[in-house]
Amino acid sequence: MDPLLKELRHNPLLWLLVLVPVALVAAQLLPNAHTLLFVLSVLAIVPLAALLSHATESVAEKTGDAAGGLLNATLGNLTELVIAGAALRAGEYALVKGSIAGAIVTNTLFMLGASFLLGGLKHHLQEFNRPTARLHAALLFLATIALISPSAIAQADLLPGAALTQKLSVALAVLLIAGYALGLLFSLKTHREIFSGAEHTQTGEPAWPIGLALVTLAVATVFVALVSEIFVESVQKTAETFGMSQAFVGFIVVALVGATAEMAVAFSAARRNRLDLSVGIALGSASQIALFVGPVLVLLSYTIGPTPMDLQFWPGAVVMVFVATLVAAFITSGGRSAWFVGVLLIFVYAVFAITLYLLPPQVP
Amino acid sequence: MDPLLKELRHNPLLWLLVLVPVALVAAQLLPNAHTLLFVLSVLAIVPLAALLSHATESVAEKTGDAAGGLLNATLGNLTELVIAGAALRAGEYALVKGSIAGAIVTNTLFMLGASFLLGGLKHHLQEFNRPTARLHAALLFLATIALISPSAIAQADLLPGAALTQKLSVALAVLLIAGYALGLLFSLKTHREIFSGAEHTQTGEPAWPIGLALVTLAVATVFVALVSEIFVESVQKTAETFGMSQAFVGFIVVALVGATAEMAVAFSAARRNRLDLSVGIALGSASQIALFVGPVLVLLSYTIGPTPMDLQFWPGAVVMVFVATLVAAFITSGGRSAWFVGVLLIFVYAVFAITLYLLPPQVP
Amino acid sequence: MDPLLKELRHNPLLWLLVLVPVALVAAQLLPNAHTLLFVLSVLAIVPLAALLSHATESVAEKTGDAAGGLLNATLGNLTELVIAGAALRAGEYALVKGSIAGAIVTNTLFMLGASFLLGGLKHHLQEFNRPTARLHAALLFLATIALISPSAIAQADLLPGAALTQKLSVALAVLLIAGYALGLLFSLKTHREIFSGAEHTQTGEPAWPIGLALVTLAVATVFVALVSEIFVESVQKTAETFGMSQAFVGFIVVALVGATAEMAVAFSAARRNRLDLSVGIALGSASQIALFVGPVLVLLSYTIGPTPMDLQFWPGAVVMVFVATLVAAFITSGGRSAWFVGVLLIFVYAVFAITLYLLPPQVP
Repeated sequence: MDPLLKELRHNPLLWLLVLVPVALVAAQLLPNAHTLLFVLSVLAIVPLAALLSHATESVAEKTGDAAGGLLNATLGNLTELVIAGAALRAGEYALVKGSIAGAIVTNTLFMLGASFLLGGLKHHLQEFNRPTARLHAALLFLATIALISPSAIAQADLLPGAALTQKLSVALAVLLIAGYALGLLFSLKTHREIFSGAEHTQTGEPAWPIGLALVTLAVATVFVALVSEIFVESVQKTAETFGMSQAFVGFIVVALVGATAEMAVAFSAARRNRLDLSVGIALGSASQIALFVGPVLVLLSYTIGPTPMDLQFWPGAVVMVFVATLVAAFITSGGRSAWFVGVLLIFVYAVFAITLYLLPPQVP
Repeated sequence: MDPLLKELRHNPLLWLLVLVPVALVAAQLLPNAHTLLFVLSVLAIVPLAALLSHATESVAEKTGDAAGGLLNATLGNLTELVIAGAALRAGEYALVKGSIAGAIVTNTLFMLGASFLLGGLKHHLQEFNRPTARLHAALLFLATIALISPSAIAQADLLPGAALTQKLSVALAVLLIAGYALGLLFSLKTHREIFSGAEHTQTGEPAWPIGLALVTLAVATVFVALVSEIFVESVQKTAETFGMSQAFVGFIVVALVGATAEMAVAFSAARRNRLDLSVGIALGSASQIALFVGPVLVLLSYTIGPTPMDLQFWPGAVVMVFVATLVAAFITSGGRSAWFVGVLLIFVYAVFAITLYLLPPQVP
Repeated sequence: MDPLLKELRHNPLLWLLVLVPVALVAAQLLPNAHTLLFVLSVLAIVPLAALLSHATESVAEKTGDAAGGLLNATLGNLTELVIAGAALRAGEYALVKGSIAGAIVTNTLFMLGASFLLGGLKHHLQEFNRPTARLHAALLFLATIALISPSAIAQADLLPGAALTQKLSVALAVLLIAGYALGLLFSLKTHREIFSGAEHTQTGEPAWPIGLALVTLAVATVFVALVSEIFVESVQKTAETFGMSQAFVGFIVVALVGATAEMAVAFSAARRNRLDLSVGIALGSASQIALFVGPVLVLLSYTIGPTPMDLQFWPGAVVMVFVATLVAAFITSGGRSAWFVGVLLIFVYAVFAITLYLLPPQVP
């Protein structure tokens, strides 16, 4: 337990862990204090996500490169998966979809942009591995196409009926997971030398012993699941109270909460002029959500959801994901960065955030 | 006739030629066996397309670089032109348009992707001439914009009436053919040194004598035309029988059938690590269809069609063509390829194919 | 006054200045001769724009690099701003928006394309500073996204009501101007070394004395304002007479008239093999209109317009601006140009122009 205590002492973020029991108790005692429960659950998820992230990487480091990479690639967005799973169980499909699309947009624009900005304020010009970034962007690009095209084709056309949409969504979910698996084979096995230098695991923090890591992984997941349920229940009422649209909550609030832990790592790497790592985390996380988390949630909806969920997004989400992907492909093809590149990315994110904030609450 | 017999002995694909008379006779005897006629006509077109392709290249090789390039550039997609002409005569405009858009998408995603995959399974990393690929992609990119923009602008807006759409389509068809002619002047004359290394004619196969090539060209064209009529008549009934949408037939089935011969050449070049050639065939063919075959069909519709055909595509086709072009521009700007790049392209193609397959039969 | 007389003698374009008083008198005597007034006002604006442009650059040169760059960056599109201001006062919001989007498209496709073509006809291959062009394109790309996304998101969705659209438009206008200011800080101050070689001011013409330049600036602005009012009043009636759509007038006619002076400089630079300058003027002007002129007009509409103007464009305009930006990003990422690249850009512009010309007059 020593490394955990050391971590607790050095990482003030983890002090928020005290809010986990507070949130759980508050949910029992004050089930109608939605705004309070919302704030408590958001603040409680942040340190849990950090623990989950560190535990995953510790296990990954112990199990060797290929297996570790695989672990990171599947559990790296566990927080997002658990939150979305809670929303899925509650049948809040608009929230689930919003958080999937929002996580892609947030990672691609905000996490990458803030990394560029924070790094650029310290370093005049920063280089990053162009082939690596390009391959990440290509993965994300093509994943995004796969995710949005059905919406675009089916929306452009007359809707072919719910049954058909369901069949299509399941087929594409399976296809996407297969594509993700092949991508792992490519990046971890056959062409791993291309990706060296942008390993997700090189966070510079000391790894935990495997036992501690596994226990932390299990316990933190359970608590994230418990707190997520409070979050999902309270978020909608809170949005109504503050006149925020559901779209804003899913796209911005949930996405930012879910990505806090990864952002901390990406930003710190950018400040240390290790932009390869920042780009890898931001775009890697985005493509993982598009190719793995989203499809898994569609398949899970047949088991834990009240009704099956499809992959059809509202048109505004499709536009935002598509634009975010184009921007990422364009920006990363240069291989160089300065502070203003970060400003531009954050600025596009702000355009989306403002637009979503001003939409009427019932959208979508 | 000796080279032709030699070719027949060495190329098992050509043994399918025996199905040409079988298909023609079957069409007379069993006019209602649509599925049988469909299968026979598809299988009969494949070897005819291979003959046409080889004959065109043989003539091109004899007539010198510039004239040969011109010949290849205009007759290179003769099979597609003849099939679409048969559909045009029958007034099957949805099928014609589907096959134009489908050929662009199929060449850009499937032919290029399978070339990358087949080459990549044999060679760890493959390079191709980046400027050449970029110029090809630029041609395709801009051609595609020209082809899709009217649909986008007019669709976005209220429809301006059929008469207006006709006028616009004719004007754009003329403009596109003029652009294609200038492009040939550029690539075959003023800046030909940039395009060297990706010549369509360097297939490695021995050329036929000019007389044999010309006769083969004429005879094969006549037979393609005859078989295409059987194909066009049977394809719709077959689609209905199997519950396939018209869109799937035009986009996938017709496009794959029309491109078989070129695919054989492109794939073999990729295996021999001559990726320049594969990229040139795949993207060159796509841009030729967009800039030349499509516009020629619009103009031809005034002569051989029951009513004039316009250039307005259904929105789903516009989305797919646009995405395919973006992907090609992004992928080819790198100048390097590995097996997973091919997987990603095929995977995008599969997304489209599955979506189209599941659409209801009457679309579009 | 000597440099002004010398300029008058050497620059035949300025002889058109004689039409300024003619247009003003004609507007009093023949208020209903709309077509005549339209032609006169167009021809009178051209030399005034040239004077404005030269005067701005002369002042910029005297005031030192940073302040001069700032001046050029804010007054460089003064003609467009004054014309659009006149349309704003008259409440012709469709014309204002059309001219904003049209100026982006015209600068990106026509001005850049004609520069490439004219330069390419004289020089076999032309190089331009790739990082500079990329940064310009990135600015334009992201500016365009900011300008079009609200339209796309709000259009995709159900319209959230006029009040909401207004609030959104003001917020985005402020954000865009802030982004533009940060961009100036980046390109003129913190990272100016990257942009060297593409300075807007290096036109090769001798600078005027500061006094003359300031007086010319003031006087020419007043006359542009006066003539613009005649132009705005007559343009719509003329369009009706000739059966042109409003969209065509705003996108093509107004945009070409407003950009005449800058085009002269860009084309001459391309012929002198100084393509850096041409690219800087064309894309710099486009991004300035998107990030500064457009947003300023939205804010101005609260003061001088009959009702507030929003940033919502008709879908066709969104498509054209988006395509133009993509093309610019793709083309400029190469850093090389030949005549056919120019042909392709002009060709895309022609596709848009023909489409707009054939739209019914009441669009949009």
